[in-house]
This record gives sequence, structure tokens and C-alpha cells, in this order.
Amino acid sequence: MVKFNIYDFFNRLNRLNVPIRMDAGQVDIPPHPELLKVLRNEVHRLEYTSYRGISELREKIAEIHKVDINEVVVIPGAKFGVAAMVYKAKRIGLIAPYWPGYLFAIEFFRKPYSILETRLEDFWQPAFGLINEKVDTLLINYPNNPTGVTLLKDKVRELLDIASERKLTIVSDEIYRDLIYDGSDFTIIECNLENTISVYSFSKTFSMPGLRLGYAIGDRRLIEAVEKFIQAVYTSTPVFAQKAAIKALELKDIIVKQLREIFRRRIEIFKKNIDPRKYDYVTPSGAFYVFLRAKNSNTSGVDLAYKLMYRGVGVFPGIAFGDSYYNYIRISLVCPEKKIIEGAKKLSEVVE
Amino acid sequence: MVKFNIYDFFNRLNRLNVPIRMDAGQVDIPPHPELLKVLRNEVHRLEYTSYRGISELREKIAEIHKVDINEVVVIPGAKFGVAAMVYKAKRIGLIAPYWPGYLFAIEFFRKPYSILETRLEDFWQPAFGLINEKVDTLLINYPNNPTGVTLLKDKVRELLDIASERKLTIVSDEIYRDLIYDGSDFTIIECNLENTISVYSFSKTFSMPGLRLGYAIGDRRLIEAVEKFIQAVYTSTPVFAQKAAIKALELKDIIVKQLREIFRRRIEIFKKNIDPRKYDYVTPSGAFYVFLRAKNSNTSGVDLAYKLMYRGVGVFPGIAFGDSYYNYIRISLVCPEKKIIEGAKKLSEVVE
Repeated sequence: MVKFNIYDFFNRLNRLNVPIRMDAGQVDIPPHPELLKVLRNEVHRLEYTSYRGISELREKIAEIHKVDINEVVVIPGAKFGVAAMVYKAKRIGLIAPYWPGYLFAIEFFRKPYSILETRLEDFWQPAFGLINEKVDTLLINYPNNPTGVTLLKDKVRELLDIASERKLTIVSDEIYRDLIYDGSDFTIIECNLENTISVYSFSKTFSMPGLRLGYAIGDRRLIEAVEKFIQAVYTSTPVFAQKAAIKALELKDIIVKQLREIFRRRIEIFKKNIDPRKYDYVTPSGAFYVFLRAKNSNTSGVDLAYKLMYRGVGVFPGIAFGDSYYNYIRISLVCPEKKIIEGAKKLSEVVE
Repeated sequence: MVKFNIYDFFNRLNRLNVPIRMDAGQVDIPPHPELLKVLRNEVHRLEYTSYRGISELREKIAEIHKVDINEVVVIPGAKFGVAAMVYKAKRIGLIAPYWPGYLFAIEFFRKPYSILETRLEDFWQPAFGLINEKVDTLLINYPNNPTGVTLLKDKVRELLDIASERKLTIVSDEIYRDLIYDGSDFTIIECNLENTISVYSFSKTFSMPGLRLGYAIGDRRLIEAVEKFIQAVYTSTPVFAQKAAIKALELKDIIVKQLREIFRRRIEIFKKNIDPRKYDYVTPSGAFYVFLRAKNSNTSGVDLAYKLMYRGVGVFPGIAFGDSYYNYIRISLVCPEKKIIEGAKKLSEVVE
């Protein structure tokens, strides 16, 4: 089977100038003007700095998450922290469907991995007990990309029991944590700090994906491994970016409130305009993705994605998120409501 | 033996607010105002972009180096490209004294390596024939950090012969290529593109170290490995940084001319003010470092560095650049002439 390359497909959508972009996870809301102001004022700060991040930012993060400053490290994007943990792992447990970026790191570092599949019928909740016994590092991501679901309370307990029993390292990608719409909240760090690390990003909530900025918090031993990775490949995250991060955390409540309202509405609008006879899906309780399965089981997600591309709508085929999801597509609600309406209609038209 | 950690020593110099900084390789000349202007105007460009870099920049680089655009990739710092090659290697050949950053990558990826030592008496020229036969990837760096020497013409020939005979991959760190004072020039890419990669940076010549920006050119197969490393750990280099890079390459001749003049003068001034009875060294023909050996052979470079630190002068001990260089120190001519004079005098005072 020829592997579907999501980067190449993305570049193709760019080249074709597809008008309705519901593919990548790049938020279309511009960054708060105060963040751009800080960036403009501080962009002359081009010196090397500490590989751990500047103290002012690390202190602020430690305060927000109620951890020690030594349990915090600034990283050039959440992916960087995940990659450091992937490199350290013996065998990785990956819950499908998964963000394809994880697989880039796993394959680059030639790590063995075991996939734990979840199903739409189970509201995408994993049966943690079925994780392969050789797995030493479990990668989780809630709210989830691509399904938008959060982890239910009894599932959190199940996860913690199994992690403690098997001495699993948990790597929790929590970049969508601020974008939850059902009032729930989840961070692994508050449940369990030992053998555990969470990664956060300024790409989604704060609309600065190209800045490459995030942080990791967790067990000091794991944070040290991330620090060594920074020293080995990167040196230090730009000071001006870290200054913008401080401002972002100061404005977080205002920004999050506004963004939640926008995505809550977009989810509603999408639901209203997609033909319920054509697709099954779980309404997302977080993030801004919907993972849809065509009811006509002969439909291939790759075919759908290409058909939609030629009709001016960018979506990603489900197979990019796991081999079993060949008849799914993922949409990303990162365009204005009018385009979402149009996109939903084209999605409805394009399947039998 | 307790390993000397250069990062920790650097942070200590920062905390103590040492007034004369001749330690790190952070150029003290501010970036050209036009580069800051581009950064300020473009810093709102916070979108994801191609993992290979934007076409406009890659085209410009391809044109300058007379290579194909597919032989170019933009990277977040030259170190990133070196690290990708280190990860790919079976056994690395490292020429001592070496920049300690190489060892961070080698140790992080737990790669075996063989050191080829060079000596002041040989003007720091390596005997390439003595490289361990198991080495498959040779890391070279001319003009050299920490010695400031360039590679002599017959040595280039020797290198190319051995590389072709043994099918060595050559990784050439050429970040100081624009800072040569004897009129010579060297880039491995012009001699040999197969199995070869060069890395360049905007940190030194263009005084933007904290921006994390560089590029690699070379054999398409090696460039692809760098691209996969970007996808696995980083995603894409900021667009605004790449816009500044385009401007930097446009202004390169003017900037380089000015910078060469500054460093040429600083080298002369240092030579005039250092007591020739106290130290041996080779006058650097490139970069902005001087690697000095105390004539009194009982002197430890670490002791010297600490003594100088308490006298207000930051220098790095030679041991950071290789175990055999315990009675050396490296100075970096990155402060104004007055401070260089004062620093040279303190260096002269501090040894017997």
C-alpha cells in the first residue's frame, strides 16, 4: 500500500489555492493585537538565551500549573517535546485515530509502537487495559485530534491505574485543553506528576503556529531529557517569542472565552448544514475538528478528499490518522461560518 | 573525571554579570537595521509553511551556491542540520579541538565517535589519513571554532581523496565561511556534492543567533534526511525569519565587508596586547576566536577561566573543546576594542 503523505497533500491544496480550507489545524482567527505588538517591540531581541527558557516565562507557567519551576521547560512547539519523549521510549503506545505528526517522530526515530484502536461507537474512548504489555510510553491527546472528544472521568481513572501498575511513562499532548465546550477539564499533570509529562502550545489557542513555541511540564527526569534534546539540536527558543508568550498567558482568559464562543458556534453551524443521512460522527466536545464516517461503506476517504479538493474544499482523509479509518475524513473548523456552511453542503453532496 | 559543562559555566557568567565577555560566540555587532525592519514588518506572518522553507529563500540560496533548489533546505539553526546528520551516522569522525555543541548531539543520540586530534604545532591541520577506519561520517568545521584556522589547499585534496576512497559522508559546518581574513575561500560543496552536506547560519555574519535560522545544501539524499528530521520534531521555520534571511542575503556583501574589517582590527589589537611570553597561539585566519595555550605547562585552562571570571573576564577553558586541551583557553573577540585590550592584559596577568 502506498502511504498517504499528508504534507504533500497539504502542499497540493496550497498550490491549487483551494478556497474553502477545512484541512490543516491552522486557526483562522488572527492573534490578539497585543501579542503582535509585543512581537514587534521585542523582535530585536536576537541573542542566545537559556536552553530552558527565560525565567520570567517559566515562573509564570509554574504558577499557572502549580508546579515547581524546574518542572517546566520552554520548547519550540509542542511537537518538539513529544519527539524528545518518542526518542527516549522503548515501545510507544499510540491511540488511533491519532495526529499523523506523532508517526513522523516515531518513524524517524525507528521506534516500535503498538496501536490501540478506538471506535466511533464507543465515543472514541480507549480500552486502556488492551494496551500492548511491551509498551513503556503511552501517548495521549485530549481533547483529541482528529475526533474532538475528551477523556471521560472513569477512563481517566482506568488510565491512571494501568499507568501505575505497569510503570508507564505518559506523554500527554494537551494543546487543545483550553478549547473544551462541555465545561469539563483534564490535565494529566494534576492527577499524576511521576513518570508523566504534558506538552502545551501557543499555536492553537493563541493563533501563532508559525512562531514554533510551546512548553512542557512534568516529572523533572523527563523535563531534563527534553532539555538535553534542546541542547543537542536547537540551542534556545527566541527571547521575543517568549515575551509574547508571557503576554499571551496574561490575556489567556479573555482570548480563550472569545475563541470558545467562536468554535462552539461553528460546530453548531456545521451540524445544522451537514446531511445526517450521509455521515456518522461524534459531536466534538473540544478542539475544532470533526471526524466523519460516510454511511455508504464503499466510500474511500482519500477519494472523498480528492473529490472535495477539485470542488474547492480542503479536508484530510481519515487514513492519515490511522489505517482503519479509510472511510473517514477529518474536517477542521478553521474558516468563517459562511464557508463552513458551503463546505458542509459540498460534503453532503459528494457522497452517495 | 567530572565533565566540564560549558552551558552551566555560561549561565554562571551571566548570573555574575561579568563585564568583559570573551566567552560565547555571540557577535556584539547589532544586526543591520534593514534586517530588524523586515522582522518588525513581517513578524505577523505566524502561519505554518513548507517544512523545506519558503521557495523565495530557497531559490536565492540555490542561486548563490550554484546548486539545484532541491539541494537546499531551510533549518532552525545550523546545529539542527548537524544533529540530523549525527543521528543518521554509524560512527562519527570528529576533529579536535571541536565546538562542544557537536558532542551534545553525538552524546544525545548515543553515537560512537572517533576523535582525530590536531596540534598547535601543525597549525591545527588534521592528518585525515589517520581517521579511524570505522568512521562513516566526518564532521569538519573551517574556519574553525575554536582555533580560527582555515583548511590548507593540500589538506582539502587529502580530505577529498580519503572521502572518496572510504565513501565517507562529509558534514561541513561552514557558518564562519564569510569571515576569512587571508583572502582564501573554502566550501566543500564546490569540490564535491555527492555524500556531502554543508550547513550555514544567520547567527554569526548577520548577528541573529537567537532567531534560530540557517540552511543546509548538499546531496539530495542527505537534504531529504534533514527534511524528515524537520517534520519529525519541528514542523517549519517561521516565515518572518525567512523574510529577514532573504534581505540578509541581499545585503551580504556590505555586511560582510564591514564585519571582516572589525574582526581583522580586533585580532590585531588582541595580538598587540597579549604578552607573547605567556601564551602560544596560531593567529586566526578566519572566524573570531583565538585558542591560546599557556606556556607554563602547569596551568589548567579551567583554573584560568575561573580566575578570569572573578577578575571580570569571561573565557571558555580549552577542555570544553577536547580532553587534550586542558591547558588551553578559547577567547571570542565579541566585545569592543577597549574591552579586548583590558581582557588581553588580564589574560597576561593571570598566568605565571
